[in-house]
Amino acid sequence: MAKYVYLFSEGNSEMRELLGGKGANLSEMTNLGLPVPQGFTVTTEACMQYYKDNEQISDEIQAQILEYMGKLEGVTGKKFGDKENPLLVSVRSGARASMPGMMDTILNLGLNDEVAESLVSLTGNPRFVYDSYRRFIQMFSDVVMELPKEEFDVLLDGMKEQKGVTLDTDLTADDMKKLVESFKDLYREKMGSEFPADPKSQLIESVKAVFRSWNNPRAITYRRLNDIPGDWGTAVNVQAMVFGNMGDKSGTGVAFTRDPSTGENKLYGEYLMNAQGEDVVAGIRTPNPISHLEETQPEIYKQFHDIAEKLEKHYRDMQDMEFTIENGKLYMLQTRNGKRTAQAAIKIAVDMVAEGMITKEEAILKVDPKILDSLLHPQFDPDLLKKAVPAAKGLPASPGAACGQIYFTADAAAKAAQEGQKTMLVRMETSPEDIEGMNAAEGILTARGGMTSHAAVVARGMGKCCVAGCDGINFFDGYITINGTRVNEGEFISLDGSTGNVYIGVIDTVGATVSGDFATFMSWADELRVLQVRTNADTPRDAKQALELGAEGIGLTRTEHMFFEADRIMAVREMILAKDADQRKRALNKILPMQRSDFEGIFRAMRGYPVTIRLLDPPLHEFLPKEKEEIEHLAKEMGVSFDELNASVEALHELNPMLGHRGCRLAVSYPEIAEMQTRAIIEAAINVNSEPGDPVIPEIMVPLVGEKKELAFVKNTITTTADAIIAESGTELKYMVGTMIEIPRAALNADEIAEEAEFFSFGTNDLTQMTFGFSRDDAGKFLEDYYSTRIYEFDPFARFDIEGTGKLVSTAVKLGRAARPNIKLGVCGEHGGDPSSVEFFHKVGLNYVSCSPFRVPIARLAAAQAAVKGKGDEVGQR
Amino acid sequence: MAKYVYLFSEGNSEMRELLGGKGANLSEMTNLGLPVPQGFTVTTEACMQYYKDNEQISDEIQAQILEYMGKLEGVTGKKFGDKENPLLVSVRSGARASMPGMMDTILNLGLNDEVAESLVSLTGNPRFVYDSYRRFIQMFSDVVMELPKEEFDVLLDGMKEQKGVTLDTDLTADDMKKLVESFKDLYREKMGSEFPADPKSQLIESVKAVFRSWNNPRAITYRRLNDIPGDWGTAVNVQAMVFGNMGDKSGTGVAFTRDPSTGENKLYGEYLMNAQGEDVVAGIRTPNPISHLEETQPEIYKQFHDIAEKLEKHYRDMQDMEFTIENGKLYMLQTRNGKRTAQAAIKIAVDMVAEGMITKEEAILKVDPKILDSLLHPQFDPDLLKKAVPAAKGLPASPGAACGQIYFTADAAAKAAQEGQKTMLVRMETSPEDIEGMNAAEGILTARGGMTSHAAVVARGMGKCCVAGCDGINFFDGYITINGTRVNEGEFISLDGSTGNVYIGVIDTVGATVSGDFATFMSWADELRVLQVRTNADTPRDAKQALELGAEGIGLTRTEHMFFEADRIMAVREMILAKDADQRKRALNKILPMQRSDFEGIFRAMRGYPVTIRLLDPPLHEFLPKEKEEIEHLAKEMGVSFDELNASVEALHELNPMLGHRGCRLAVSYPEIAEMQTRAIIEAAINVNSEPGDPVIPEIMVPLVGEKKELAFVKNTITTTADAIIAESGTELKYMVGTMIEIPRAALNADEIAEEAEFFSFGTNDLTQMTFGFSRDDAGKFLEDYYSTRIYEFDPFARFDIEGTGKLVSTAVKLGRAARPNIKLGVCGEHGGDPSSVEFFHKVGLNYVSCSPFRVPIARLAAAQAAVKGKGDEVGQR
Repeated sequence: MAKYVYLFSEGNSEMRELLGGKGANLSEMTNLGLPVPQGFTVTTEACMQYYKDNEQISDEIQAQILEYMGKLEGVTGKKFGDKENPLLVSVRSGARASMPGMMDTILNLGLNDEVAESLVSLTGNPRFVYDSYRRFIQMFSDVVMELPKEEFDVLLDGMKEQKGVTLDTDLTADDMKKLVESFKDLYREKMGSEFPADPKSQLIESVKAVFRSWNNPRAITYRRLNDIPGDWGTAVNVQAMVFGNMGDKSGTGVAFTRDPSTGENKLYGEYLMNAQGEDVVAGIRTPNPISHLEETQPEIYKQFHDIAEKLEKHYRDMQDMEFTIENGKLYMLQTRNGKRTAQAAIKIAVDMVAEGMITKEEAILKVDPKILDSLLHPQFDPDLLKKAVPAAKGLPASPGAACGQIYFTADAAAKAAQEGQKTMLVRMETSPEDIEGMNAAEGILTARGGMTSHAAVVARGMGKCCVAGCDGINFFDGYITINGTRVNEGEFISLDGSTGNVYIGVIDTVGATVSGDFATFMSWADELRVLQVRTNADTPRDAKQALELGAEGIGLTRTEHMFFEADRIMAVREMILAKDADQRKRALNKILPMQRSDFEGIFRAMRGYPVTIRLLDPPLHEFLPKEKEEIEHLAKEMGVSFDELNASVEALHELNPMLGHRGCRLAVSYPEIAEMQTRAIIEAAINVNSEPGDPVIPEIMVPLVGEKKELAFVKNTITTTADAIIAESGTELKYMVGTMIEIPRAALNADEIAEEAEFFSFGTNDLTQMTFGFSRDDAGKFLEDYYSTRIYEFDPFARFDIEGTGKLVSTAVKLGRAARPNIKLGVCGEHGGDPSSVEFFHKVGLNYVSCSPFRVPIARLAAAQAAVKGKGDEVGQR
Repeated sequence: MAKYVYLFSEGNSEMRELLGGKGANLSEMTNLGLPVPQGFTVTTEACMQYYKDNEQISDEIQAQILEYMGKLEGVTGKKFGDKENPLLVSVRSGARASMPGMMDTILNLGLNDEVAESLVSLTGNPRFVYDSYRRFIQMFSDVVMELPKEEFDVLLDGMKEQKGVTLDTDLTADDMKKLVESFKDLYREKMGSEFPADPKSQLIESVKAVFRSWNNPRAITYRRLNDIPGDWGTAVNVQAMVFGNMGDKSGTGVAFTRDPSTGENKLYGEYLMNAQGEDVVAGIRTPNPISHLEETQPEIYKQFHDIAEKLEKHYRDMQDMEFTIENGKLYMLQTRNGKRTAQAAIKIAVDMVAEGMITKEEAILKVDPKILDSLLHPQFDPDLLKKAVPAAKGLPASPGAACGQIYFTADAAAKAAQEGQKTMLVRMETSPEDIEGMNAAEGILTARGGMTSHAAVVARGMGKCCVAGCDGINFFDGYITINGTRVNEGEFISLDGSTGNVYIGVIDTVGATVSGDFATFMSWADELRVLQVRTNADTPRDAKQALELGAEGIGLTRTEHMFFEADRIMAVREMILAKDADQRKRALNKILPMQRSDFEGIFRAMRGYPVTIRLLDPPLHEFLPKEKEEIEHLAKEMGVSFDELNASVEALHELNPMLGHRGCRLAVSYPEIAEMQTRAIIEAAINVNSEPGDPVIPEIMVPLVGEKKELAFVKNTITTTADAIIAESGTELKYMVGTMIEIPRAALNADEIAEEAEFFSFGTNDLTQMTFGFSRDDAGKFLEDYYSTRIYEFDPFARFDIEGTGKLVSTAVKLGRAARPNIKLGVCGEHGGDPSSVEFFHKVGLNYVSCSPFRVPIARLAAAQAAVKGKGDEVGQR
């Protein structure tokens, strides 16, 4: 028979998978001899069994719970539901990973009218008893029966008003008793039955409610955003109550061993006397700072301080603790590693190494790479932000904060920016044509699109704040409405790309303040990691930015964005609409000097580093106008008839552009495009190398290859062109030709392809699309349904799909290295900046990841963590 | 040192890979002691070496060629380029597989002015010598120098006119000599140099030209259409000349051991006296039937007849032979297995078994499955067809012949058909909305789209003639132009879906005549094959048709076509545009009885056979109107505003519908659709099973699955619905739930998916699209470039890509069977009817293939061939 319940005294901190974090730590504190009210933990396995049994707690598990309740009675000397010496308990969830606010707590469970009366006799404190009782009814109704606690608050507020008091501590025992009655009336009225008086059924229903809460929508979303698998389940902790609401010598509080905002090494927290846990956070009374305890109850403070120190040393991490004082006696209710700001995380990690408490390796593992993001972008002034009310909320697509005057077309935004305005581009969705306007704006707001929409991807690449897919936006002529409020073109809004909040008006920002600790910390990450970190950068500015953030080269330069700039789009369109290769070459000759100078700029920024440049990738129709007026305009400029131009535009139309004439397919159909781009790259490299400095090593990357012969064909165009230019120049230039692996067929035949490719760069965006058979742009329509049915727990475009797409990557790594042992392997999809994905790329043995500039520090840290975690593991040759 | 050249006496018929078919057979005939002018073969390896060496014949190979020319001189006693006893040779290509007309022949090589003069002295026949010389100049110029032979014909015709004769045999020696001079003048004028007089360089240039011709566009296309790999290369045969143009006792001809049109067992062929090979086919003089030879030269005829019999017995197949008579002596120049019509192929195979010449297994291997197609469809009356001139040519998308009055919308075509007209649907391209019109029409003609476009796929499914992607069609109001000729709506055109030809006006057709031999032959195929053959059928009519053609069940019933029928599309649109699940269910309730009766019809047609029904697959927007007027019309009908409806239509728009909200994703978002379809299937099966007859076994198939949990979710909807209906009915019903494997991720995780799926059906169309990363609809834009650059040799949508996509299929088969040993495995993509693909599916161990009804016999034969070829091979458990 499986064991589904453990006394606190039976567990320890190693058992968090089974007991959850809270349960394991209660056990550990028990083992350490700390004053912990005893109790037991119903395991995560019981939770998963509950789901297997169609959301029922089996008789077997129910029996074990009641058996352990009996054991707890033995430990405490009290009896659950007893009239003589009744035992009350709290019931709390506790998953393996902390999921704050996901699930609720029920206190004072075990109360009913009879138990209450006997408690009054026992304690002689009716106010405490009825205060506890009314709290229990409210919490149980809310958590177990989904009867909102606000309905009870109305009654409580009514009572306070009636009695002319503002604090609930000013209510009398009698008031509380009356409240209990009116709470029960409310319950009866709403639920159509009496409030359950049987403590055992109170208990079982509460356990069930905690299990159920594991799959509430809030929890599912939280897990998706925090990479927590859905099959972990939650444990339930049943703990004997101690009471902070027994009078003025009782109280309750929370504290951190160090300041969670700044990282300062000083006990930090707050508490309330004569209160239960939820009062501290509810804000009805203002809690006291923990330092106040030192003044008023120095002995209790000292005891708590010592315990805090002991726990931090024991766990070797900053602790977040809950405690209760019952009639002058201190109890510990919880300890866990504390959440902290990015700044605090860095400072604590660096300090703890200095204090000799932890090693550098441990320090590296203590900081969640994702939070580094917030260190690197400007933020709203926290004081101003507190007062601001968001007008709408979209997806936090690219972090940072920004204000600007709104414009609805890229042109208008760019023009206003040129005139010195701070602008904000607001669009239904963006497309590559908007690139100049996006670049000019302070931030980007779109009404449609997900975390990997065009706007989101490009904004992250630019390190620019972006809120995407913001539902409440509607477009009108010259203005928008934000959830009904009209905002005219040219008026200000403020965007928080880290939360997705949209504000009307201006909120001032403060710059990112990166302490010296950051540099120290990141230098440790660099020492420890094996993976190199490159950046995706299309401009010298991005490249410089990324270098400052620690990039070691460029893993992806897209050449298509350059094509959209106002001074060259005409030549690009001429090229696309050319009737034959000669006309196409003439147009390409106009583009050549511009591309060459683009590459020169990037090469100058990247002296001594490798730079991977991808040949033209998108389908050509992306460069053409779509609307009738635009086509008319272009026809006039090009001196052809509307019908002729329109026919050309229509001929290029594709039903599925993602699966169309793009990538190296363009270079097969129009070798002269690849020829021009090769010429621009090679000439630029020769020019820059003629200046003093470290040599540049261009890596020319062929996109969308699916077949060895396809790569061989394009490579032949590249090397023929490049070798002729190099020979003519009389200088030496080392360059490489490689390919993206972004099509399943390429991964399956990577051994053949490696015979032609000097490097592979996994394009995990496209590879994910093809492997799943859905496109980033269209998946938004159904992925929400997949999350809510728990078919997918993560967005595979944000977190790499190791179980499916990962098999293609492993296959390609194995085949590629077998065919060419020194092949260079990297990744340049969005996943290159996602920590859990980076861990996989480390394990599978890639040489580098490449990500947008602002994600470079994240990738560096994630790579270091992967290396520390995997130490001793066998990894492939690099 | 590699051996690149073989004397005929060194080879045999087993060496066709190295020597090509022609070379191997010349060797074999030499070994058989037949009168073959001796020579040597330059191998296919030399050809591939030529391409490796950048289209140069290496010194080593040149030296070997000249060395073997020396050996040939020894055999013949003549000398190449010699003035005393000169040796003349023919140079002909000869690939491993016969590629008729792909490459040309050069006769009389080795001639120059001096050699000609000495030959005159030797033979005393100046007319013969200068006739040979002028022929050589013309052929060499045409084949080697690409100087069109027509330009020489002008000179020849001029000479005939000048001399007042019609036959070239009436020209004198002197005339011929003058022609030689004027031919050389023409050469000099056009090429800017003298006609090459050096026999050795004539020889090497000719060999080079044959090698080069392996990759001319005609050859590349021929190979693609006939599944011949591009890396086989061609051999070159150099053979001592014998002369059919030496006078009236000389001649040349071709003959078959049996009639290639009917299969009749009788020598069949024709010949010309005083002629060289090309005269027989050129049509300048009318050749004599071979029977004439029996009368005029009975001894030669008898010798030839005996040789023919010997060769047929030796090769155990009908032979196609070339011969020459030189001064009364018979020489054999070639033998090969003869091309034949489908009807002849069947008759010959069956006769040869009856004659005891071959076994059934050998008979099965002798018929190309693809040609069966032409037996099963009506054809144009051959006599009328000879006189008809095609107005345009498109792709032969679905075989058969048809005439009808043209209409440009599906509605118009359907309406005219109802009124009794034979109609022809002419569209830019078709979409699922056109299905009724397609069904009503005799044939379908589209201006756009490839062999796997919607029109092509659906037409093949219907067994209806279709010409797709016909360039010369332009649409106007009320009429079209076909290559400039106006054809009004309601006027007749005729389509040949087997050739792609489009004719203006009516050509009468004749029905398919399938002899009793066909049934005999197919029964042997059924005995020998292991793979089962099912059909893809959406209607009872298709199902019945397929049963007649030998189908053993339905592998794919698409349910979406049923949705388009006029009487239900409104309910479908109501369902799609429903605001909530309730409204959706109401609309679905209207569809339910119609779907149920669809399935009842199919089940009745398929008593005793399994029927696989796929749940709704296409994205919902396919069912909505796209044009403004149509939306306005629908809005009126639905009683909603245009804006509201338009917004709904726009919200459903997808950038890449192929990668969008379709397949089982619909069943996840709207389980009520799957519920309704399951109900319709199960109720229909119960109803039909209550009638007397064999029980129907519905197999419910979930499309587009990529993840086990996704299938589990949809399966839960299906089984819950089905089991409740079955329980309520009080009857028993066996049904299965399975999935399509058409997404790479599903193939990679097939072991997990097999835990939920009772069968897999490989959807190789989509799987090919995702694996290659290009869509059928869009690939047309660049696949031609891929063929011409020889990156791809085949259309992967027509012939299954074993090297890439095949790896996913093998993986899925292995994983699927490991997880569920008795899993049923099939394929329902277009490839199920393609012979080389069927061979792969047999090898990989599938249980069945499913294809459109008219391809069922092809698949049966291909499956039998695969089984015969693979006998003794280990194949997976089925």
